[in-house]
Amino acid sequence: MSKAKKSFRPKARAPRGLRDQRGGQLQAERRMLDAIAGVYARYGFELLDTPAFEYADALGKFLPDQDRPNEGVFSFQDDDEQWLSMRYDLTAPLARFVAENYDSLPKPFRRYQWGPVWRNEKPGPGRFRQFIQIDADSVGAPTMAADAEMIAMMADCMDALGIARGDYVVRVNNRKILDGVLECAGLLPEASNYETQKLIVLRAIDKLDRLGADGVMLLLGEGRKDESGDYTKGAGLSPEQIEKVMAFTRAGAADRRETCANLRSAVGTSAIGLEGVEELQEIDRLLDALACGSDRAVFDPSVVRGLGYYTGPVFEVELVFEAENEKGEMTRFGSVGSGGRYDGLVKMFKGVEVPATGCSFGVSRLFAALEALGKTQTDAATGPVVVLVMDKDRAADYQVMTKELRDAGICAEMYMGGGGMRAQMKYADKRGAPLVVIEGEDERAKAEVTLKDLVLGERLSADISDNEEWRSGAQAQVSISRTGLVEGVQKMLMASDAFKGEG
Amino acid sequence: MSKAKKSFRPKARAPRGLRDQRGGQLQAERRMLDAIAGVYARYGFELLDTPAFEYADALGKFLPDQDRPNEGVFSFQDDDEQWLSMRYDLTAPLARFVAENYDSLPKPFRRYQWGPVWRNEKPGPGRFRQFIQIDADSVGAPTMAADAEMIAMMADCMDALGIARGDYVVRVNNRKILDGVLECAGLLPEASNYETQKLIVLRAIDKLDRLGADGVMLLLGEGRKDESGDYTKGAGLSPEQIEKVMAFTRAGAADRRETCANLRSAVGTSAIGLEGVEELQEIDRLLDALACGSDRAVFDPSVVRGLGYYTGPVFEVELVFEAENEKGEMTRFGSVGSGGRYDGLVKMFKGVEVPATGCSFGVSRLFAALEALGKTQTDAATGPVVVLVMDKDRAADYQVMTKELRDAGICAEMYMGGGGMRAQMKYADKRGAPLVVIEGEDERAKAEVTLKDLVLGERLSADISDNEEWRSGAQAQVSISRTGLVEGVQKMLMASDAFKGEG
Repeated sequence: MSKAKKSFRPKARAPRGLRDQRGGQLQAERRMLDAIAGVYARYGFELLDTPAFEYADALGKFLPDQDRPNEGVFSFQDDDEQWLSMRYDLTAPLARFVAENYDSLPKPFRRYQWGPVWRNEKPGPGRFRQFIQIDADSVGAPTMAADAEMIAMMADCMDALGIARGDYVVRVNNRKILDGVLECAGLLPEASNYETQKLIVLRAIDKLDRLGADGVMLLLGEGRKDESGDYTKGAGLSPEQIEKVMAFTRAGAADRRETCANLRSAVGTSAIGLEGVEELQEIDRLLDALACGSDRAVFDPSVVRGLGYYTGPVFEVELVFEAENEKGEMTRFGSVGSGGRYDGLVKMFKGVEVPATGCSFGVSRLFAALEALGKTQTDAATGPVVVLVMDKDRAADYQVMTKELRDAGICAEMYMGGGGMRAQMKYADKRGAPLVVIEGEDERAKAEVTLKDLVLGERLSADISDNEEWRSGAQAQVSISRTGLVEGVQKMLMASDAFKGEG
Repeated sequence: MSKAKKSFRPKARAPRGLRDQRGGQLQAERRMLDAIAGVYARYGFELLDTPAFEYADALGKFLPDQDRPNEGVFSFQDDDEQWLSMRYDLTAPLARFVAENYDSLPKPFRRYQWGPVWRNEKPGPGRFRQFIQIDADSVGAPTMAADAEMIAMMADCMDALGIARGDYVVRVNNRKILDGVLECAGLLPEASNYETQKLIVLRAIDKLDRLGADGVMLLLGEGRKDESGDYTKGAGLSPEQIEKVMAFTRAGAADRRETCANLRSAVGTSAIGLEGVEELQEIDRLLDALACGSDRAVFDPSVVRGLGYYTGPVFEVELVFEAENEKGEMTRFGSVGSGGRYDGLVKMFKGVEVPATGCSFGVSRLFAALEALGKTQTDAATGPVVVLVMDKDRAADYQVMTKELRDAGICAEMYMGGGGMRAQMKYADKRGAPLVVIEGEDERAKAEVTLKDLVLGERLSADISDNEEWRSGAQAQVSISRTGLVEGVQKMLMASDAFKGEG
């Protein structure tokens, strides 16, 4: 390699399935994270940060999660030959952290965390191998109060992001109820094929939206052949058993109490099933106390969630409005966050169950939804005020102006590149500068500066048909006294903000 | 492994040389990052985020950096056999990003970025293999205005963090001047051993603080034997050459212009040396324009900085106050940030030089300094208000109270764990709760709630010798009407804040 050192020129490219983010869009995403973190903090969760990677064994090759393949994780060997894996979520590191510091932590341990996670999966459009999650969890919290709080908090996050009531709903289910339904249908945990059958049933229910009741019934029975001719083996339930499961999926109603009543008859006399229904009833009462009515959170038996480690209530936030996707089609955004109770996760370290519940938002998906709703302000002129360099020898004077603006709290910079007026205006435009400050020879002789309003300028250029009139640009610029610089800029920025507000 | 699946219990531990951070301390560190990011943004820099890893070749195995060993980087192979490396700083990914997006970016491209970087090095006390940097860079900015701005901005960051004038100083040098001094001493770039000799000279000067002038002179000459008997080969300069280099290291003065005059005589007629001095003079003028006087930024020939890729001005922020370290010794914190001009970094992709300059703070070091100065507020009661559960059946009522507090913007939670009064008070204490809300049977009968002020309580317990008097706790708690809950809590929080302010 050393021979190539001088002549080798690597290609500049981000690794496959990874992306860069910048500027106003990234700032807007961070604002969104801040808003969610603010809700989490107001609910009493404390901030935690864990390293990007963990020992592979601690990260959960041993998680009771039958859905996630081990090969989805980035792993490498440390100098001492131990295997390290990059975190694929924020829950597994939390379990390690709690187990490691169990005695010194407050119990319950309530933390929130945000940061990147990594999945070594096939990338695709909008599907990256590094993405951000923002989670909150209560570890050591056995009661339904902790789950109800998660549900209300997810709804409050939607409110905090400006998503209107009616545009989102938190759908809640309880794993125990499905167990009860299966028991009621004669499927018993003692049977050797119980776990396999249950998983097939869960996956079938999860496809209700896409396949409809008929398709799901095939998957619950012998099996189903899809359009491409591929055959999926079914759970092998009898028609009576299938009917019991389907009755369960139809138990959802707009009102939570009505759903509870329907579910109660679906589980029959199953103890585990009844326990699940009673948990939902308790959640209903607590949600009412948190002013989270059926308009914000419903009980929905069709919610199953993929992760095998959930042990009780599971929930997901769904955006129910339609928006245009990249292809111009109107679609629902669907699920943007989820959570549930996982009483077994810390157990792999401690040997004893530690009751826990948590929630997580997928940040890019949620941000895409906010963009579709126009709630991100990413197109506004968010760049700095640019002080143009009209005379290279007077850089110090321009820096004095720039500093005056900054001292007044205005984001401002002196142009630092090469080239003349044209290059500088192009730069200001690319940066999304709201205005530029110009002090050429003429202005200086009169102890004045010219402010050019780029927001108004753009607006006018859209209206003006006469190109000459626009070029004169008279309406979008103003000359003021040099001593009134800060005041003049502030005035122009306030006017731009007002325009932006209208837009 | 699958055999072990059921019985294997991994040890919960963070990987070697990595750490978790949490709570008030982490929040305080984030506030510090926000303050610095705020200064960067006010200077007109835009936010960028790049992935945690890059293709190994793009990350700079080919960087012209003779000081950093390749083995200091975490690397692993992707599925397609390409090598990926975790970023070891934020500058190399920036170079890749700029080269990849060169045509579409505003020029100069001014970005700031913060986030973790990884070094596969031997960990030690306070030395981790993942740590946070916060950088700003101007890429495509050829003039000294960009360097002067970096220097003033680093000083402004110190101000923004509440570090007093006089407690910090930015030390500035210029690589070109040392080249000039060497030329003036008869060492010429054409000589085959020039780069080696120059590196030894740079390293010798870097040790001035530790070894003193005599030790440095040995290293510039034949070599030096240290206390342990280890011998370091010197640069092999003649006594006259050594004197010229030493005169250069003595050129620093409290006043920047005086230093420039001294340096001018140190470089003699060397063209590159004079260019370096003129660059410093330009920086001096621009720093004056930015109100950054010799009390905040000085020119110091002894600043060399380790990185080989700097091509012009180099600078570092030094904290000059003394503070107690973990061993109780009074020491200076030293350098907390640095930067400089690197015109060659983007070249490895583009083939042409792209002038650039930047700065970087080491976040943990800087945070440790803020803690020593008492500027972080990490010991204050920063936890949530805790509403105690006096009767498990009344969880919904307690949640209503909690929600009332949150709706008023107060961080609050209902206790979610098990156990009685003692466990709950212990929890509130561990969380740093400022106060707890109590509504037992008695209070409820009177439509009252009791607020227990934990900040005042702790203060009183320190003053009170009579344990009984303390236990009654009368002074630190107050009963108010249930309807006045929010108002009462707000009043108590304000009083606590006043206490904290005094402390």
